[in-house]
Amino acid sequence: MPNTTAIERLIQLLAKLPGLGPRSGRRAVLHLLTKRDQLMLPLAAALSETAETVRLCSKCGNLDTVDPCVLCTDPRRDQTTICVVEDVADLWALERANAFNGLYHILGGALSALDGIGPEELGIARLLERARGPGMREVILATNATVEGQTTAHYIADRLASLGLVVSRLAHGVPVGGELDYLDDGTLTAAMKARRPA
Amino acid sequence: MPNTTAIERLIQLLAKLPGLGPRSGRRAVLHLLTKRDQLMLPLAAALSETAETVRLCSKCGNLDTVDPCVLCTDPRRDQTTICVVEDVADLWALERANAFNGLYHILGGALSALDGIGPEELGIARLLERARGPGMREVILATNATVEGQTTAHYIADRLASLGLVVSRLAHGVPVGGELDYLDDGTLTAAMKARRPA
Repeated sequence: MPNTTAIERLIQLLAKLPGLGPRSGRRAVLHLLTKRDQLMLPLAAALSETAETVRLCSKCGNLDTVDPCVLCTDPRRDQTTICVVEDVADLWALERANAFNGLYHILGGALSALDGIGPEELGIARLLERARGPGMREVILATNATVEGQTTAHYIADRLASLGLVVSRLAHGVPVGGELDYLDDGTLTAAMKARRPA
Repeated sequence: MPNTTAIERLIQLLAKLPGLGPRSGRRAVLHLLTKRDQLMLPLAAALSETAETVRLCSKCGNLDTVDPCVLCTDPRRDQTTICVVEDVADLWALERANAFNGLYHILGGALSALDGIGPEELGIARLLERARGPGMREVILATNATVEGQTTAHYIADRLASLGLVVSRLAHGVPVGGELDYLDDGTLTAAMKARRPA
């Protein structure tokens, strides 16, 4: 047992991070203590700074130090298209891939009767309001390809149907670089159904 | 890509912890941002506090906020026995197991010609000095059961030979709860050689 309360407390806190536990928490503390100036103190400063400055964008639900966030206010982004994602992590993934250059809307989850998450919890009314805005042309439903994600996409598509917008979904199919042999039946069936002229 | 430099910097720092990478760093940041008061700010405070208060014990090499450390100054511990370990993590493991109630000596590694770690780097002279102290009775060599650890133990045993102390090593054998079928040959051979009357 680490014999100082300071170290013990730090291990307990680190062990609460996703992907870490008590053992890796201890390893992390020993690593940090060998790199106090390069890693430990900068990490402490970055944690406080981020905790104090980062907030939710009131328009799209993104995390940023400014509100509205830099994506919402960037004039180079297409202001006529909204891409709906479940989480900020999904937005980050699309931005890393440079796959989309419009606006985002983050639901903060997916519909789930089991977890008691309904349309109110996801702020879908706020999305509908944005979709009704002037000049809006398309809503892309980029929720996860899980049961909950697809249910959520269906629900939102229904609610958007009357607005006269293009409502689209991400294509399902073979991942780029993927080998057919390793793909599940659902993906192969979807890829076959959505086949396109070569 | 996370679009604020504060978040990006935090991810980069978290990704440097052992067991985490860029992906788990991003997941950790999103988790932290949902628990700012319960986890993020306490973690920042614990990191700075530990970085500023924890230092090496000048007697045994343990990490503590006081020097000498609480283990070295605890009068209930056996002052006649020193247990030699490679790292603070090993000391923590022995303390968690309540396996030893004497003094420790932390080498900070093991002899390794490849990595240029010789007796000077491990401060073995300091250990010999402690072993020569009044009333010292036994030195337990609890370095790892690796080639480097065992080489280090051999070397220290040689250097201690002339002092008239008991020099002992941890027993090798079947781990408690271990199944023979899953053990390596070396462990089985060691366990057979060191067999004891039932």
